Amino acid sequence: MKKLLRVLNGEALDVPPIWLMRQAGRYLPEYRETRTKAGSFLELCYTPELAEEVTLQPIRRFGFDAAILFADILLVPQALGMDLWFVEGEGPRLAWPGDDQNLGALRPVDEIDETLGPIYETVRRLSGSLPDDVTLIGFAGAPWTVATYMAAGRGTPDQGPARRWIYDNPSGFSHLIDILTEATIAYLCRQIEAGAEVVKLFDSWAGALTPEAFRRFSIDPARRIVQAIAARYPSVPVIGFPRAAGVMYEEFARTTGVRGVALDQQVPLDWAREALPGVALQGNLDPMLMVVGGDALKDAAKRIVGAMAGAPHIFNLGHGITPDASPEHVEQLLQAVRN
Amino acid sequence: MKKLLRVLNGEALDVPPIWLMRQAGRYLPEYRETRTKAGSFLELCYTPELAEEVTLQPIRRFGFDAAILFADILLVPQALGMDLWFVEGEGPRLAWPGDDQNLGALRPVDEIDETLGPIYETVRRLSGSLPDDVTLIGFAGAPWTVATYMAAGRGTPDQGPARRWIYDNPSGFSHLIDILTEATIAYLCRQIEAGAEVVKLFDSWAGALTPEAFRRFSIDPARRIVQAIAARYPSVPVIGFPRAAGVMYEEFARTTGVRGVALDQQVPLDWAREALPGVALQGNLDPMLMVVGGDALKDAAKRIVGAMAGAPHIFNLGHGITPDASPEHVEQLLQAVRN
Repeated sequence: MKKLLRVLNGEALDVPPIWLMRQAGRYLPEYRETRTKAGSFLELCYTPELAEEVTLQPIRRFGFDAAILFADILLVPQALGMDLWFVEGEGPRLAWPGDDQNLGALRPVDEIDETLGPIYETVRRLSGSLPDDVTLIGFAGAPWTVATYMAAGRGTPDQGPARRWIYDNPSGFSHLIDILTEATIAYLCRQIEAGAEVVKLFDSWAGALTPEAFRRFSIDPARRIVQAIAARYPSVPVIGFPRAAGVMYEEFARTTGVRGVALDQQVPLDWAREALPGVALQGNLDPMLMVVGGDALKDAAKRIVGAMAGAPHIFNLGHGITPDASPEHVEQLLQAVRN
Repeated sequence: MKKLLRVLNGEALDVPPIWLMRQAGRYLPEYRETRTKAGSFLELCYTPELAEEVTLQPIRRFGFDAAILFADILLVPQALGMDLWFVEGEGPRLAWPGDDQNLGALRPVDEIDETLGPIYETVRRLSGSLPDDVTLIGFAGAPWTVATYMAAGRGTPDQGPARRWIYDNPSGFSHLIDILTEATIAYLCRQIEAGAEVVKLFDSWAGALTPEAFRRFSIDPARRIVQAIAARYPSVPVIGFPRAAGVMYEEFARTTGVRGVALDQQVPLDWAREALPGVALQGNLDPMLMVVGGDALKDAAKRIVGAMAGAPHIFNLGHGITPDASPEHVEQLLQAVRN
């Protein structure tokens, strides 16, 4: 069995498998070249041969233990009928079809494949082209995090519009989360059918929620997604990433059924090993170290490997690698983790 | 003894004392009027009669149990010689004297009073003008949080420049934290001499730190500040607010010597009661509820009061009240908490 799958099945390996969030990204010159060729970020996502190419680039260059599908968490709301575009240097913009935040104007969940077909094709191609020992990870944004962008029409520092929606119209917001949960289940199942061996749920803004809202809008949808996948594809593990969940990581790990939990850089690993038994832990190097490199990077990497020794651990960052990171530092990291 | 001080001395009251972070602020029409009269935000901070007036406004209107000095956490770097100005609608800007991030160009800590004199005068005035049962709280930004603004020259979404400085030049960054720790001790002691009965340390960006960095740059300076104050003014309690510290709240509460810990809205209160014994807990209503009001507000307030029953508790928000909050909702909150 591949290393990543062994760890997600509870095995502790002497050398942890390693991959990096956003490993196919702007810090790589070959990515920037393919991105230019594609014309736009969305063209890159929706052109299977190019999305396949950028997914493979970090595998070729670094020999990571896993490849993660190149796509974007906002393709799902786009498939549900929202307009999606990216403003250079600023980020995504989303607009509702017809009236403002009218859930009835969204397309039915069973029509998302009309938009997302090329994504499944990318997964299929990767499934054939990846080296035998590399695990293919599919992914989706978690309903809460996707909803924060739908509510605001863009990224926001405090996720205010979605947090307000929760209180202003609780049943409407719950309905939105239900729609996104169903869409996420369908999307991830199709990725699995196309060849994804693991799927990961990115709840990047989980830290903005009160404990009550976290239970309803992060834990509950995650549990439903995990159960739906387990019912159909029991061998495919789900990794949950409720970023910045703090104390609530414990309840997330205990109650959602995920087989792996990705930890941001704030989480103390000694606490996590004790409080989150029974799941593989992934993380949690400070992404800033990929910019800095050198001894600071190597020392921190070795500290994480040491802290997780004897436990099922997947080495990764606490958040995505940034455009100003250096490919050389990735080499340094791999040496520190693997030697 | 005043209610707030009783709670900080470990007493559980049937009706918790209540105040709100940023209670003197833009959501109040009378604040906006005084702010206009002052001409600029910094003029308002440095004009004792006007700073006193805005500090008193929410006390007059709502009868809060505590008043917090009106000032800004960036007055300390300004007093250390940095240029400070505010860009309307954007926020603060800071510039280093002379060379970029040259600590040697900062003014000595023992000269900060030349700039901060008017702040102590505001405290003195408040000490005389506040109603007898209202506690006067002084405050400062915690060294780490102040350093994030000094490193970036402004607010940032991820505190990247300061996080990078930690790794790029650990001894330089430690030196900066030492300077800020000394300045904060001097600043808070002068506030206490002028009449502050409690002081609060705002570490708004504590959540950006890894556990190792949190220990060095949030916990350690807080402990030094608490010890220095306890040595000179043993009856003056310190409230610590390592916002978004997650799991690390426990170690912060256990090791800094603070008598109160302010909790952001993400922290589950049942966890906090168990994990943070021996300190008064302050918080942790979602500030968004001050925008929304109504039953959602009242229900959440009652849930917090219920969860903290029998424990030393100061009612407050999980973060500052926002400009779009409604004064009417503050009335609703006070009724829910006090009746």
